[in-house]
Amino acid sequence: MKKIGVILAGCGVYDGSEIHEAVLTLLALDQAGAEAICFAPDIDQHHVINHRTGEEMNETRNVLTESARICRGAISDLANLDASALDALIIPGGYGAAKNLCNYAFKSAECEVNEEVATAVKSFHKEGKPVGFLCIAPVIAAKLLGCEGIELTIGSDAATAKDIEAMGAKHVEAKVEEAIVSPGTKIVSTPAYMLGPNIGAVAKGIEALVNKVVELA
Amino acid sequence: MKKIGVILAGCGVYDGSEIHEAVLTLLALDQAGAEAICFAPDIDQHHVINHRTGEEMNETRNVLTESARICRGAISDLANLDASALDALIIPGGYGAAKNLCNYAFKSAECEVNEEVATAVKSFHKEGKPVGFLCIAPVIAAKLLGCEGIELTIGSDAATAKDIEAMGAKHVEAKVEEAIVSPGTKIVSTPAYMLGPNIGAVAKGIEALVNKVVELA
Repeated sequence: MKKIGVILAGCGVYDGSEIHEAVLTLLALDQAGAEAICFAPDIDQHHVINHRTGEEMNETRNVLTESARICRGAISDLANLDASALDALIIPGGYGAAKNLCNYAFKSAECEVNEEVATAVKSFHKEGKPVGFLCIAPVIAAKLLGCEGIELTIGSDAATAKDIEAMGAKHVEAKVEEAIVSPGTKIVSTPAYMLGPNIGAVAKGIEALVNKVVELA
Repeated sequence: MKKIGVILAGCGVYDGSEIHEAVLTLLALDQAGAEAICFAPDIDQHHVINHRTGEEMNETRNVLTESARICRGAISDLANLDASALDALIIPGGYGAAKNLCNYAFKSAECEVNEEVATAVKSFHKEGKPVGFLCIAPVIAAKLLGCEGIELTIGSDAATAKDIEAMGAKHVEAKVEEAIVSPGTKIVSTPAYMLGPNIGAVAKGIEALVNKVVELA
């Protein structure tokens, strides 16, 4: 059974991993006969957003602790991820990917990527293992591997597509049910909730991405 | 398009709604061509559990605010639920159903059900509209409607089955991929993570429950 690492970024679209995208990734991995191994960095979230009102809350939450909610406690500190023990890696979206795993949400193309996340992505890529990016998470790939001219999709959002190109990568428009493999690599991406419009459509794209990742692993 | 109410109980299996069960309910409703309308009570959670360690945290979180994470902010106060405007109701599981929507986790068959939850379930049932219960949530149906001798399943857990019978209902063993309709009623239940063992199996049972509920609505 192939073992696929999944890096989470908290629990909730506005300050963590987009919950539907994370759960649908776990579902598609199970349906593909692969084992999901979840990780998250042991760091504070950038902030906590009240998902009912959209306002910031005066609280501190830990990315690893909150991510554990999505995988029923079965999660490890990202510091312990060993790429050689896994077959592929997937990073779901949600603002947490752009606020906690990197700071794209605040610095656009000038963003920095969390060191543990950067090490993980580069390790898998270097070993020729697939890495899948959902929704806004392709900005992480653009920052780390843009110099290789890889192709990525975030759907059709013009501003984000421009940032991806500014980081050296090439943006390819894709439909919500599609997953794009960058030619000559095993970097896979799908627009998910960057396009929406509903959970059923997003599920199709995530299933396509997961199936490509598992097939290439 | 049929409108199906979904009552959430927080965000995380140990102190709120089981996230996979809630998301898979939203997915199956979308795939069945129905519209999900989410609600949660505007009350404090019984407590907050660190899902990484299982320990209680010294925090207070609101059930409605945390539930909003699961549905990307599209949620209403359960106090505003109008059964006459909806076609059916579904309550996912997780400890939150037994700690926040009722206090079964602490008082077993002697439990009390939150008044807004009780009003909602009884209103749908009285109007002949389907009500679906996942995982541990059937204890709510047993408490409210056990006097009618309804049939429910929580899978095969002997202690919970005994409590369900103590509340006047009849427990029926079921497999994880099955959904049970209580004869002569539109009360539907499925074991979900009371049986597990993985997200793919749980998804099948939830899809079966959602399809029955939508079909009966």
